[in-house]
Amino acid sequence: MKAAVIGAGGYISGELVRLLLQHPHLELAQATSTRHRGRLLSAAHPNLRDQSDLCFVSEDQLAPCDVVFLAMPHGAAAKSMDRWSALAPRVVDLSADFRLSDPSVRERYYPGAAPDPAWQSRFRPGIPELYRERLRGADHIAVPGCMANAAILALHPLAEAGLVRGPVLVDARTGSSGGGRTPDQGSHHPERSGALRIAKPHGHRHTAEIEQACGVPVRMTVTAVEAVRGVQAVLHITPAREVTERELWAVYRAAYREEPFVRLVRERSALHRIPEPRILGGSNYCDIGLSLGPEGDHLIVVAALDNLVKGGAGNAVQCVNIASGWDETAGLRFAGLHPA
Amino acid sequence: MKAAVIGAGGYISGELVRLLLQHPHLELAQATSTRHRGRLLSAAHPNLRDQSDLCFVSEDQLAPCDVVFLAMPHGAAAKSMDRWSALAPRVVDLSADFRLSDPSVRERYYPGAAPDPAWQSRFRPGIPELYRERLRGADHIAVPGCMANAAILALHPLAEAGLVRGPVLVDARTGSSGGGRTPDQGSHHPERSGALRIAKPHGHRHTAEIEQACGVPVRMTVTAVEAVRGVQAVLHITPAREVTERELWAVYRAAYREEPFVRLVRERSALHRIPEPRILGGSNYCDIGLSLGPEGDHLIVVAALDNLVKGGAGNAVQCVNIASGWDETAGLRFAGLHPA
Amino acid sequence: MKAAVIGAGGYISGELVRLLLQHPHLELAQATSTRHRGRLLSAAHPNLRDQSDLCFVSEDQLAPCDVVFLAMPHGAAAKSMDRWSALAPRVVDLSADFRLSDPSVRERYYPGAAPDPAWQSRFRPGIPELYRERLRGADHIAVPGCMANAAILALHPLAEAGLVRGPVLVDARTGSSGGGRTPDQGSHHPERSGALRIAKPHGHRHTAEIEQACGVPVRMTVTAVEAVRGVQAVLHITPAREVTERELWAVYRAAYREEPFVRLVRERSALHRIPEPRILGGSNYCDIGLSLGPEGDHLIVVAALDNLVKGGAGNAVQCVNIASGWDETAGLRFAGLHPA
Amino acid sequence: MKAAVIGAGGYISGELVRLLLQHPHLELAQATSTRHRGRLLSAAHPNLRDQSDLCFVSEDQLAPCDVVFLAMPHGAAAKSMDRWSALAPRVVDLSADFRLSDPSVRERYYPGAAPDPAWQSRFRPGIPELYRERLRGADHIAVPGCMANAAILALHPLAEAGLVRGPVLVDARTGSSGGGRTPDQGSHHPERSGALRIAKPHGHRHTAEIEQACGVPVRMTVTAVEAVRGVQAVLHITPAREVTERELWAVYRAAYREEPFVRLVRERSALHRIPEPRILGGSNYCDIGLSLGPEGDHLIVVAALDNLVKGGAGNAVQCVNIASGWDETAGLRFAGLHPA
Repeated sequence: MKAAVIGAGGYISGELVRLLLQHPHLELAQATSTRHRGRLLSAAHPNLRDQSDLCFVSEDQLAPCDVVFLAMPHGAAAKSMDRWSALAPRVVDLSADFRLSDPSVRERYYPGAAPDPAWQSRFRPGIPELYRERLRGADHIAVPGCMANAAILALHPLAEAGLVRGPVLVDARTGSSGGGRTPDQGSHHPERSGALRIAKPHGHRHTAEIEQACGVPVRMTVTAVEAVRGVQAVLHITPAREVTERELWAVYRAAYREEPFVRLVRERSALHRIPEPRILGGSNYCDIGLSLGPEGDHLIVVAALDNLVKGGAGNAVQCVNIASGWDETAGLRFAGLHPA
Repeated sequence: MKAAVIGAGGYISGELVRLLLQHPHLELAQATSTRHRGRLLSAAHPNLRDQSDLCFVSEDQLAPCDVVFLAMPHGAAAKSMDRWSALAPRVVDLSADFRLSDPSVRERYYPGAAPDPAWQSRFRPGIPELYRERLRGADHIAVPGCMANAAILALHPLAEAGLVRGPVLVDARTGSSGGGRTPDQGSHHPERSGALRIAKPHGHRHTAEIEQACGVPVRMTVTAVEAVRGVQAVLHITPAREVTERELWAVYRAAYREEPFVRLVRERSALHRIPEPRILGGSNYCDIGLSLGPEGDHLIVVAALDNLVKGGAGNAVQCVNIASGWDETAGLRFAGLHPA
Repeated sequence: MKAAVIGAGGYISGELVRLLLQHPHLELAQATSTRHRGRLLSAAHPNLRDQSDLCFVSEDQLAPCDVVFLAMPHGAAAKSMDRWSALAPRVVDLSADFRLSDPSVRERYYPGAAPDPAWQSRFRPGIPELYRERLRGADHIAVPGCMANAAILALHPLAEAGLVRGPVLVDARTGSSGGGRTPDQGSHHPERSGALRIAKPHGHRHTAEIEQACGVPVRMTVTAVEAVRGVQAVLHITPAREVTERELWAVYRAAYREEPFVRLVRERSALHRIPEPRILGGSNYCDIGLSLGPEGDHLIVVAALDNLVKGGAGNAVQCVNIASGWDETAGLRFAGLHPA
Repeated sequence: MKAAVIGAGGYISGELVRLLLQHPHLELAQATSTRHRGRLLSAAHPNLRDQSDLCFVSEDQLAPCDVVFLAMPHGAAAKSMDRWSALAPRVVDLSADFRLSDPSVRERYYPGAAPDPAWQSRFRPGIPELYRERLRGADHIAVPGCMANAAILALHPLAEAGLVRGPVLVDARTGSSGGGRTPDQGSHHPERSGALRIAKPHGHRHTAEIEQACGVPVRMTVTAVEAVRGVQAVLHITPAREVTERELWAVYRAAYREEPFVRLVRERSALHRIPEPRILGGSNYCDIGLSLGPEGDHLIVVAALDNLVKGGAGNAVQCVNIASGWDETAGLRFAGLHPA
């Protein structure tokens, strides 16, 4: 099956390209980049030296294919859906354009960028763990934001089980690659290095995605930490009733026992007791752990993932694997590295 | 005035030694280290090359002096108070031995290590911003833990004003120097580098200090982050009633307007909107900022400091400055570095 | 084919285990660890959670198999060769025990640890790019040191071509994982973080391996840099005669054109002009680049690799692939990550 | 004495401002910044919060003063020397404009930017260790580049003693702050983090400064390493004759015994045997160490400094202290931090 990646010079799309080059059923046939047009993929992605002879093309050089991945700035995908739809029968959007189904919520977080409702209604949320059945055969898929995906996977089982009281506090820690490829004052190494920067203490856009998927109010804080890759979502939850850790683990096991890319981390060792994104670089895993305080009124649930893979490109490939009826793990079996 | 530092080969005591070497009123007369006995201070603290001719001595070589700083492992100071007291009329303890006044709380967090109640009752808490008057002329001072100090300075004004409802969530992020100088598997660079390690999701000992000073219940989580120095305490607070950010700032201004080492950070720039410890390395400042969510039910207060200075050695010197009636900022005027 | 890894709890052996778990022709059948005996592989290698049900065993629980990888401290493999040889017909040693063929050189760099000459003579050097024919069918393979491998791949073509005058200066920069898994003062995060530590300005043991393989005198300096993984070997060479960069590239192309895991990096972009190890984490590539100074008397050749993969475990697997007559790249096709 | 800093919003000038604010004889009276005009110094330098009420002004708001520091892009100072000279009797240039005295060398490294020869002839090189006598009473001072300064201090004593044969290889490792405050693709955190980037393997401009000061040919390579601050210059030298380490140390002691800001580092501990910039952040020290290889044909001399202080702002202040007849260490006594 032939795939095209639109906006293939970025970080998430670089990972998408890497995954597609090794995918058993998908062939990367076309990759667009305005900036790198005519040059090898490795011009933008030095890790891909000698991995492919493909060169970036411009959008007007595109030929029809089987699936098109849209990795463009927010707002761009929605504007040209007729075009992408004519290009391939299956469209996967990695931007925020089709993530939020409620127009008023969308308008609040992304003012003035409403997509055509007809297109909006066709897109299905790209979260296999929540919507696997809806993804089978799906032709329009909108994959979630990286921090949203981590928080949703951490929160959803508890919310479903009615175990959450009041607003959930999502403390998301993120590496610098989440900010994309364009340099600015905030990404300048002397300023970004060693940061513990809470640039957005309230109102981050991913809040809306978490609330939509889990149905509970969320207060979200984002801290930029010293890392290139990785998201760690630390959820602070007030249990709705008295619970034990054992009971909580049972809820998560029931939800994720069969999931190929969610791992429940329940270790005694202080070193790896709670999930961290470091060992997940390049992998499609989301690791989840928890701790219930002795007073019983404070539960921590932690999810870690690679923002560019399970938080973006890998998750998109997983969705297409499901949509196409392939082995869900095809092309996604890299285990991550330790130490890293 | 002659000072002695007991246990002077560690990280906090290294900073103490550095500060004392440049203090206008205190003279570093003696520094003990079992491991480095007979060698120059720079054997343990390479930044102090050419700063002093003093060599480490063993404890049995100590001569009487004016003030003794105890920088030993928890439990060691309390065991030999008669000795330290005989050595100098003023004793400053940097360990946890005399921080907790309630024996039952102490027993819960530091089981089996109760100090003599007579000694315990003489120690005053080394938090100038809360107890300045009690520190004037004080002969026994117990300085708080690094993360506790940050959280206390962030929380106390609000708690005093009755603006806090229910347990306060303290999310403390800490650099590796807070773990001291002894290598272990967790401090091994390949394991510690790039960490977002929540080794202690509940029950950290500093919880008790914060609750004691502020009088509100605390749930505390500690994350080891990629940094050598620095603590950032992020407090998540439910306001007890409807408040505005303006009102909250007024509370903090009233509390800290005259404080030489607390800075209220209220910037528009996303880059420096909320305090970070990076720019505080070597300085005695505690920077405090806040953000109130639009729903009004979620307030973030953030304090940042250098764990070895305002979270330890610098704070100890500030206390002695007050106790001795000197300019409170003597020897503590280093501004910190940017970029760093 | 069944494989055993002896000393499987370390960093290089962790990578070996990871590679074997995904190898199409090799099956990881046994992994020993004194410390982790009876526990899952993920107890030592958290990235391997859910990748295998295998538990560590002790050495006396080993059963015969087809190939045994020795990943023990220097000196240990040589002492028990009869045992390993009885265990499997093919033995691959990742330590230094069988790397140096000249007894006097070996004695100088590893005093008192001479292996039995009969065993020594059976081992072939595990450097596919230099000794591929000797590796076909080989039953005893000694893979080189990580920094040695990088320097040898950078230097060998020029040395062969007689283009090197006088001693070659090898400036090796290394991440902390090269020091292994045991914590010490030098690996303690507050000391190791941000290091530019030239702990061994002269006389590093890898010098002997480079001189043996390339036949030219070497002066080697090692700097520990801020990284967990990666080696960058910067060679400063005085050309033996007037040469052009074009001529030099021709030498390297002739040597490595067909090599599956050596990439010649010849870019204009300052960002990626000279190879760096960062984008090679987890991959088996060695990237090589060069620059000839305008005066013609100073040539820089740079090789970068992942010390745990092409500098260890991956290279060992590549050697076994050759020895077994399999596709040389089997199990080794991971491309590395960018950004990382 | 009143001082003005022109271009005070950058990194080196930020350090200059910090040093001037605590200088006993110099008063920071004016600081210009086009971008930050009208705002507090802390708008550009967050570490200076509460340190000063001074606001940035534009250049046309400047009033006459006693000394003006020029911290502008290369080429800007030379263009307006009449103006700066009219502003203050003493002018200190931190750019490269007046560093190179030979017009043909200057034209080669900075084509088309020749300053007026009359102005050029008035400037004295701001290297106290080499030109202290020429700096006394000097009214025009050109401080050297950060990497040049490190290399010159490492090389000059040996070159003077005739102990250097052939070209000296200068391997300079530098943090990201040396690239200044303007973000670009190379300084973008995901690209710059963890770098070992040899962007300029040959022909760096600082080569000319080192050759000018030391009179020996230099081959210079620059590697951008993972650090914000700091330069480490590693010199590879072929001794002109047989020498011992003892003899070499005698040469350095003779040269630097009385120097307040050069420290000779001669330790046995592998941890601190060779100087590193980490412990020098904020300090004006240049630490120098060496190692002679057993073959006698390879000598390493290493100098480390903070690129923004001894490699820029601190060195400029030291020069003004000398020119003004003050204690040379005035305002420069900060010792640096460990761990850092």
